[in-house]
Amino acid sequence: MSEILSSLRSLMASHSPPLDALVVPSEDYHQSEYVSARDKRREFVSGFTGSAGLALITKNEARLWTDGRYFLQAIQQLSDEWTLMRMGEDPLVEVWMSDNLSEGANIGVDPWCVSVDTANRWGKAFAKKSQNLIPTTTDLVDEVWKSRPPPEMNPVLVHPLEFAGRSVSDKLTDLRAKLKQESARGLVIAALDEVAWLYNIRGTDVAYCPVVHAFAIVTTDSAFLYVDKKKVSNEVSEYFKGLGVEVKEYTDVISDVALLASKQLFSSFSSKSEDMEIDSDQTDRLWVDPASCCYALYSKLDADKVLLQPSPLSLPKALKNPVELEGLKKAHVQANKKKPTSETSKLTEVTVSDKLESLRAAKEHFRGLSFPTISSVGSNAAIIHYSPEPEACAEMDPDKIYLCDSGAQYLDGTTDITRTVHFGKPSAHEKDCYTAVLKGHVALGNARFPKGTNGYALDILARAPLWKFGLDYRHGTGHGVGSYLFVHEGPHQVSFRPSARNVPLQATMTVTDEPGYYEDGNFGIRLENVLVVNDAETEFNFGDKGYLQFEHITWAPYQVKLIDLKQLTREEIDWLNTYHLRCKDILAPFLNQAEMEWLKKATEPVSVLA
Amino acid sequence: MSEILSSLRSLMASHSPPLDALVVPSEDYHQSEYVSARDKRREFVSGFTGSAGLALITKNEARLWTDGRYFLQAIQQLSDEWTLMRMGEDPLVEVWMSDNLSEGANIGVDPWCVSVDTANRWGKAFAKKSQNLIPTTTDLVDEVWKSRPPPEMNPVLVHPLEFAGRSVSDKLTDLRAKLKQESARGLVIAALDEVAWLYNIRGTDVAYCPVVHAFAIVTTDSAFLYVDKKKVSNEVSEYFKGLGVEVKEYTDVISDVALLASKQLFSSFSSKSEDMEIDSDQTDRLWVDPASCCYALYSKLDADKVLLQPSPLSLPKALKNPVELEGLKKAHVQANKKKPTSETSKLTEVTVSDKLESLRAAKEHFRGLSFPTISSVGSNAAIIHYSPEPEACAEMDPDKIYLCDSGAQYLDGTTDITRTVHFGKPSAHEKDCYTAVLKGHVALGNARFPKGTNGYALDILARAPLWKFGLDYRHGTGHGVGSYLFVHEGPHQVSFRPSARNVPLQATMTVTDEPGYYEDGNFGIRLENVLVVNDAETEFNFGDKGYLQFEHITWAPYQVKLIDLKQLTREEIDWLNTYHLRCKDILAPFLNQAEMEWLKKATEPVSVLA
Repeated sequence: MSEILSSLRSLMASHSPPLDALVVPSEDYHQSEYVSARDKRREFVSGFTGSAGLALITKNEARLWTDGRYFLQAIQQLSDEWTLMRMGEDPLVEVWMSDNLSEGANIGVDPWCVSVDTANRWGKAFAKKSQNLIPTTTDLVDEVWKSRPPPEMNPVLVHPLEFAGRSVSDKLTDLRAKLKQESARGLVIAALDEVAWLYNIRGTDVAYCPVVHAFAIVTTDSAFLYVDKKKVSNEVSEYFKGLGVEVKEYTDVISDVALLASKQLFSSFSSKSEDMEIDSDQTDRLWVDPASCCYALYSKLDADKVLLQPSPLSLPKALKNPVELEGLKKAHVQANKKKPTSETSKLTEVTVSDKLESLRAAKEHFRGLSFPTISSVGSNAAIIHYSPEPEACAEMDPDKIYLCDSGAQYLDGTTDITRTVHFGKPSAHEKDCYTAVLKGHVALGNARFPKGTNGYALDILARAPLWKFGLDYRHGTGHGVGSYLFVHEGPHQVSFRPSARNVPLQATMTVTDEPGYYEDGNFGIRLENVLVVNDAETEFNFGDKGYLQFEHITWAPYQVKLIDLKQLTREEIDWLNTYHLRCKDILAPFLNQAEMEWLKKATEPVSVLA
Repeated sequence: MSEILSSLRSLMASHSPPLDALVVPSEDYHQSEYVSARDKRREFVSGFTGSAGLALITKNEARLWTDGRYFLQAIQQLSDEWTLMRMGEDPLVEVWMSDNLSEGANIGVDPWCVSVDTANRWGKAFAKKSQNLIPTTTDLVDEVWKSRPPPEMNPVLVHPLEFAGRSVSDKLTDLRAKLKQESARGLVIAALDEVAWLYNIRGTDVAYCPVVHAFAIVTTDSAFLYVDKKKVSNEVSEYFKGLGVEVKEYTDVISDVALLASKQLFSSFSSKSEDMEIDSDQTDRLWVDPASCCYALYSKLDADKVLLQPSPLSLPKALKNPVELEGLKKAHVQANKKKPTSETSKLTEVTVSDKLESLRAAKEHFRGLSFPTISSVGSNAAIIHYSPEPEACAEMDPDKIYLCDSGAQYLDGTTDITRTVHFGKPSAHEKDCYTAVLKGHVALGNARFPKGTNGYALDILARAPLWKFGLDYRHGTGHGVGSYLFVHEGPHQVSFRPSARNVPLQATMTVTDEPGYYEDGNFGIRLENVLVVNDAETEFNFGDKGYLQFEHITWAPYQVKLIDLKQLTREEIDWLNTYHLRCKDILAPFLNQAEMEWLKKATEPVSVLA
C-alpha cells in the first residue's frame, strides 16, 4: 500500500468521529475546474492528472471517478491500488457509497472543497442507510502532503475598461437590481471568474486562468473582496477604495459570512449602514449559488434564509458586451508584435506544441495559454485531454493523424481551437470519420433556431452524422468562452448533459463547436471553432420569438485531404468554400509570402463533383 | 351573461365553502385525452370543442387555456364572455390563479377530474397567497347541465390473444414482479387504455378509443375490475372468473381504494388473502401514477405510504410484442373485405372525409376511426386540429392546399397518417414550406441514435429545416400509437416539451413522425407516418450502447409537385425514391388498374437534377 493511502487511512481512523471513507474532490475552495498546484489534492492522492475527477478512499479500497474524456488517461496513470469508475457507465459516486458503505458509515470531506449542491445531493443519498457526511475540521490530504507547494503570491491586476467594456459600478448597479428583484439582501461570490469579472480584476494565481484567489460579498449597500492583502499594491488598493469596495484578508471570509448572516457585517465605505436596522421592510434572504459556493461558507448561514439559485453574475458574464466581442474577434486574428524565433529541432508532440506557443507569445496582448495544449499523434489523439510530456512524447509521424487543441489568454480575449490533420495519406476509414465529424461541426455551426432553444436540444445536430455509422464521442459539444477569463465558461453549454437545458443560448454569448471521434489505440479527431450567438435575419419570424444563428470567429482551414467530398451535401460544400475564402481574406494581412502560398493552397475551392 | 355561467356562479356562491373560482378541466375520471359526450364538461361550459384545454370561471371572468394546436379554433368558438389564454405564451393557469385571485381565495375543482400531479402543482402555487384548492363534493357543471347525455352502456369485449399477443396472466406476472421490485403491495389503475391492455379487453364507451369506462386494482395476490356490471355479459364474466379477476361495480372503486389503504381489501379469488396479515415483511406502499390517477382516489390513501411514480404498465404497453407489430403493419396496408360504394357528390371537406371513412370501413377488422378526420382546405388547414362540419365546411379547391389527417381502429392495430396535397399549381412559397416540412420528416425518419436517446433530443431534427427560414410549428413531432388502443399513447414522445425527456425511445415502440407548418389565414402543411423503433445494424457500435433506427410502416406517396427538388440533398432524393418504390410494391396487390396507374405516376423516381 502506498504511503499516502496508509497515512490517510490512519488520519481517517483517528478523526473524531472516525471516518469509514474520505472523499477527495478535484475542486479548490472556489469549486474551480482548473486549480493551482497546491490545490491538486485529488491528483496528489491518486496520481491521476486529469482536470475532472473524484477520489474515494475507504478502509480497504481506493476508487477514482472521472468522465469519458479521461478514461484512457486514468487507466494509464492509476496504480493497482485504484479502481477506475467510469462516469456515465458506472454508478454515481453517491449511489456507490450509499450501496457499498455500511449502515451508519461516516464519510468525510473537506467542506471547503465541496459545493452546496454536491453536499446536499450526497446527504440525500446517504439518508437511506443513515450514513453521515462529515465535514472534516482540517483537510486530511493537506496533513499528509509534506511537499505541498506554498500559496501563490501574485499581484492583483486591474483589467482596464478598454478591455472589460463595462465599469464595476455599472456591474454593481445591475447586480443590486437583481438582488432587489429576488428580495435578497446580499450575495456570497465564490467563483473565481465571477469575482474577477465583477471587480474588473485579473491575476495569475491559477495556471491558464487569469484570476486571483478571492471571495466577494456584495450587499445592497456594501461590497467586499477577500484576498491575501500582500497581493494588493497601493495602487490597486486605491482602485478598490475608489470603487467603494472594502478589501479584507482571504481568511476573513468565513467569519464575515457569519456576520452577514446575523446582519452584523458593515463596510466602512457604506453610507447607509446605520439605516439598515431601521428598514424593516428589507427582506432577509442571502443569495448563494449552490454550484460554486462551498459547504463550509454555506454552513454559516441560516438555511431557511438562503436563496439557493444560480449566481446572478453568471449570465451577465456570458453575455458579452460590444468591447468584449470586438476584442475576442481580434484575439482570434491578431498580428504578431515581434518576429517569432525560427529554430529547427526534432518534431515531437512537445516541440510542435512549444513552437505554437512561441508563435502565440509573439502576438499582441499575449498573457499565456488558456489550457495545456493538446498536441497528440496517432493513438495519443484518442486520449481526449492528452497532455504530452517532453521525455515521453511521440514524434510527428506522416502516417498518423495529428490533433492539436490549443488556446491562449490575450488581454482582449480568450481563444480555443482544434484542428486535426494528416501529413501523409489518410485511410478511407480516417476520412469517413473526419467527414462525419466535419458534417456535425458544420450542422451545428450553421444552425438557426428560435430564441429559447437550449444547448441540450442543439447537441444532436453535431452527433447525428456520426450516429449514422454507430459512432459518437464522450464529451459535450460546446462550452462558453470567457473574455480574458476561463476558457470553459457557463452557464450555457451544448451537451447531452441535463445541465445543458438550464439556460437557453442567447445573442452575444460565445460557445465552442467541437464534435469529435476517438478510436482507442488508433487515432482521435476533433474540430473546434469558437462561435458567437447572433440574431438571425430569417425570412420569416414564426411565433414572433426571434431566431438566432452562429458567427464563426475562428479562422483556420480544414484539411481537405481528410474530407470525403462525396459525402458532403452541396450546402456543406458551399459553406466550406465560403469559410475558406474568408480564412484567406482575414488572415492574408498577417502572413508572409510563403505562409500565403500555403494558405492559398489550403483554401482552394472544392467542387461538388470532386 | 350566459345562463351556464350565471348558474355556475350561483352554485359557486352557495357552495360550502363559497368558491372564488371554479376550474373545469377537459379530463374525465380517468384523465383521458378523448372523453365521452357526457364527460365534455369543459366544452359544455365554454363552447370550445378542442381536445385539450381548461376553463376557469371566477366571479367576474371566464378564461380558457389551450395549446398552440387550438388557438385559432378557440378564437372562433369562444364567446365574448371568454378570454383565450395561450399556453406557452400566457402564464400557466396556476400562476395566473395565484397572481390574480385574492389572498386566501377558494378555488374549486371536481376531484375526480384532476390528476394528483395537477392538484399537487396547483396546491404549491396556491400556498404563496394562502389560497385553497377545494375538492367540490359534487361536480357543479353536472348540476347545471340539464341535457347531459346518459352513461354509455356498451358491452365489454374480450380482445383475443391472436391480436393481443400476450396473455393476461403473463401481464399480471410481469406487473407483480415490478410491484415486488418497488416494494409496493398494490397498484391503482385509472388510465382507460392501461385497464384495457392489462385485461385484454376493449369497448366502445369513448368515441375513437376502443376502451371501457373502468378502473382496476392489482395487488400481489388479487386483481379487480371496476365497471358497470350491466356491460359485462355472462360469457365475459366467465372470462374474468377464469383469470381470477374480480369484477365489481364502477362506483365501488372509491370505497375499495379506502379498504386497500387499510389492508382490508380481499378478493374472493385470492388464495393467499389470509396470509397477508402474517407476512410482516410485506411492505406497505401503494403505487399510484400521479398523471392518470385522480385526486379523489388518491385522497383515500395515506400519502406517506404512496409510491407516486409513472405506471408500471405504461412502458410494457408501449413496447409492442411481435403479434402486435405484425398486426400494426397489416393494419396499415389491409385488403378491402368488401367493395366500397362509389357515389358522386359535391366534393367538400366533409364528403371527401366521409368517402375516406367508407374506404376504411370496407377493410378487414375495421372498428371505427381513431380520431375525428382532419379534412381541411386552404386556410382551414392552418387550424391544426380542424374538424369540418357538414353545414359549414369548405369545398375542395384546386387553387388551395388540402390537408388530410386520418386514422382508424382495426382489430389488429391503430393507424394515423397525414398527407398534404395541391390539386392545382402550388406557389413557390407553398413549395418552400412543403419542402422544409418534408426535409424535417425525412431527417427524423432516417435518424440513427444510440440507445438512451429521448424524443426531446430527436425533436430538433424535424424542426431544423424549418428554423432555417424562421418557421416552426406549435405542436410536438411524434406520439406513440396504441395497438387497437389510443391513437395518442405514451410514455415516450418526440417533442420540445420537457416530458419528452422522461423515457428514451426503445426498440418495438411505435411513434409518429409529423412535422408541419401552419400559416394563419393561408394554408397548413403536415406530413405524418407511423414509425417503429428497431435495432440498427450500424457499421460500428461506439460505447457498446447499441443503436436504434426507425422503420416506416405507413405507405402513401408524397406529392412530388409540392417538392422543390433543388432543395433536397442526394440522400433525401434517394430516400424519397426508395420509399416511393416500396409504396408501389406494397400497395400494388390491393389496387385496381386505374388506381395502379395513378400510383405508378405518383411514385415515379425523381432525379437530383430535375
